[in-house]
Amino acid sequence: MTGTALLTDRYELTMVAAALADGTAERHCVFELFARRLPDGRRYGVVAGTGRLLEALERFRFSADDLASLAPVVDPATLDWLRDYRFTGDVDGYPEGELYFPGSPVLTVTGSFADAVVLETLALSIFNHDCAIASAAARMVTAAAGRPLIEMGSRRTHEEAAVAAARAAYLAGFATTSNLAAGARHGIPTAGTAAHAWVLLHDDEPAAFASQVAALGTGTTLLVDTYDIRRGIDHAVAAAGPGLGAVRIDSGDLGELARQARDQLDSLGATGTRIVLSGDLDEYAIASLRAEPVDSYGVGTSLVTGSGAPTAGMVYKLVEVDGRPVSKRSSAKESRGGRKAALRRFKPTGTAVEEVVYPYGSDPVAGPHDRVLAVPLVRDGKVVADEPLTDLQAARERLRTALVAVPWEGLKLSRGEPAIPTTFLTGS
Amino acid sequence: MTGTALLTDRYELTMVAAALADGTAERHCVFELFARRLPDGRRYGVVAGTGRLLEALERFRFSADDLASLAPVVDPATLDWLRDYRFTGDVDGYPEGELYFPGSPVLTVTGSFADAVVLETLALSIFNHDCAIASAAARMVTAAAGRPLIEMGSRRTHEEAAVAAARAAYLAGFATTSNLAAGARHGIPTAGTAAHAWVLLHDDEPAAFASQVAALGTGTTLLVDTYDIRRGIDHAVAAAGPGLGAVRIDSGDLGELARQARDQLDSLGATGTRIVLSGDLDEYAIASLRAEPVDSYGVGTSLVTGSGAPTAGMVYKLVEVDGRPVSKRSSAKESRGGRKAALRRFKPTGTAVEEVVYPYGSDPVAGPHDRVLAVPLVRDGKVVADEPLTDLQAARERLRTALVAVPWEGLKLSRGEPAIPTTFLTGS
Repeated sequence: MTGTALLTDRYELTMVAAALADGTAERHCVFELFARRLPDGRRYGVVAGTGRLLEALERFRFSADDLASLAPVVDPATLDWLRDYRFTGDVDGYPEGELYFPGSPVLTVTGSFADAVVLETLALSIFNHDCAIASAAARMVTAAAGRPLIEMGSRRTHEEAAVAAARAAYLAGFATTSNLAAGARHGIPTAGTAAHAWVLLHDDEPAAFASQVAALGTGTTLLVDTYDIRRGIDHAVAAAGPGLGAVRIDSGDLGELARQARDQLDSLGATGTRIVLSGDLDEYAIASLRAEPVDSYGVGTSLVTGSGAPTAGMVYKLVEVDGRPVSKRSSAKESRGGRKAALRRFKPTGTAVEEVVYPYGSDPVAGPHDRVLAVPLVRDGKVVADEPLTDLQAARERLRTALVAVPWEGLKLSRGEPAIPTTFLTGS
Repeated sequence: MTGTALLTDRYELTMVAAALADGTAERHCVFELFARRLPDGRRYGVVAGTGRLLEALERFRFSADDLASLAPVVDPATLDWLRDYRFTGDVDGYPEGELYFPGSPVLTVTGSFADAVVLETLALSIFNHDCAIASAAARMVTAAAGRPLIEMGSRRTHEEAAVAAARAAYLAGFATTSNLAAGARHGIPTAGTAAHAWVLLHDDEPAAFASQVAALGTGTTLLVDTYDIRRGIDHAVAAAGPGLGAVRIDSGDLGELARQARDQLDSLGATGTRIVLSGDLDEYAIASLRAEPVDSYGVGTSLVTGSGAPTAGMVYKLVEVDGRPVSKRSSAKESRGGRKAALRRFKPTGTAVEEVVYPYGSDPVAGPHDRVLAVPLVRDGKVVADEPLTDLQAARERLRTALVAVPWEGLKLSRGEPAIPTTFLTGS
């Protein structure tokens, strides 16, 4: 596997160089990764990326080629240090699929300054991307109200971001992805229909459909909107018979077209044939189709771009040095010093009430309805996470459970405040 | 290097399977990659990604592991075909750094259906990402009016998208990037300052600055807004002397702070010390700082998210089969059949007038001020591009020249129509 150590901002390594020179490199530090706020109007965020980060951490090594490229950047002593670099600290964090709110300490990295500072860019890249996608995806899953969603946005984003987006979408409840690498790497079920090119390649639509059914079976999904949708559905049922798996409609007034398609399919005896809609769907469009006879949705652009919030706005901040709380003080970007932990308070009914962020080491757990949120992920550089990094099923289940506990207003798609407030307790 | 063949949507391979079965796999096809429209209000797009695509094409091979993962997806005959897959067709396209407009045939792929269809997702992923970033970056470069821009958005996007974003930004005229992998892979100059963590790590700001100067020299950039900016600048000049390279301010009212910093630096004799501003800058914020004493800008989030347009909206459409023009006809997503070429018309003064898209093989060149836009990139599967894939300098120069030719209204940041209209000529 390729190394990940150069996926890093230059200043991290020059800070290491200066810190090795002045002796501060070994100071014991705590960095926290968190979002100061949610994207505008969003009610909650979904943690995603933890598994990817831990996997990337194991590949965070500077190769000989990497070091050669860094020769103009840092001094020889620093190159030597980088050559031997292995992260030997600890990491704690919210598990994937957990919700987060403003200030939630989603990830805590402890170790020497030099050990921990070099992970800043990689950790932020992974969390800012994956949390943005998972958070948008979760809203789409809610909007779909139980109908399956197919992730098909690979072509609208960077080719490797596409694989991570498919993973984040699946984690958030999508049923399948079109991305084959996501299937191979993460075990996500893949799905696909056919493109308009398939119909255009053939002499006519009936020939294209007959060929697709011959090769892929009657359970396949035929794309019926290349020419005229009504004739397309006729051709589709003629090709596959009333046992046709599904038809896909990718353009036009999707709600109206779905109704017409359902009527037509039923009249042709294809009462079990499903209707798949795609074409610039986002969570609002999905919600607006709730009353229509739709069986599943294909979502592309809006998913991989975080539906208006393509980055989660997470930051990675030094909060403690040799046990001393530290924080920036000059502006609105102020942060809270000192290592923190968090718990979520619930009503006896199970509804979440607040996110409580408190000084690490204090214990404000007040009763059986408080749940501490972070878990140990890495100890002395070794991954110790409870569940396998690849266990997306557990993350899906965790998110499902967490969303059930959100106050109902928090699940609305409309803009508003975070679903629960964050309370910051200070040291006593 | 890792293979790229699985960065593909499942339906491309199932279409190949069906086409191999029915004999259409060998039909000679032309696919065109283009944008139906520019992002809302944008005046032009910048072509970026061509070099990355050609490099990815050489790694588009199905490994044994890839094929094993595809066993549940396609039949054994198709697996055999994939095992031997090498692209053997032709590719033509606009060179990197060229402008594009709605309908510009940015990339043309010709070959058998099976050869060409499997490249759809990878080609779109690369162009939709890289063009989105380069197009946003070019506006920022224009807004900066000659002041250098530092790309520092890696942490706000997927870790590999970050490297591509740094490349696209440099291609569009950014001076440097913070991303070390972009430096190592693409030869882009890297730059860096220090984080607030650097100051917080130390016992006080003077100690932090003294250490940074000792390790990195007086030419370094000191981050002065961790506590109080005025005192920070005092500490900075005390640490480095009046020969200090630069100070960075990352928060607050940047214009006001830049003026105060300039006055203070000058009064301390540090008249040559540069002022670097960062902190949620986009092209509008950069433009608004034009009258202020700023020496360079660090741009992060807005760059890597395409400043509101994170994807370029490119599509990859089959337009010709065995010499027969084909096109979808059902809806607003209609496209124009037949292989096309394009030229740009200029006034004798050098100002661009229109983008002319015409049937390939016809010759509407009307005079010395018409410039044909596409160049050969691949012939019979072999890269034949005129310039090395890594020649970002040529792309920078090409874009600079192309932007000079844009009518002046087209360089305004405000929303509007494309800078020049696209005229579609039909076959005679």
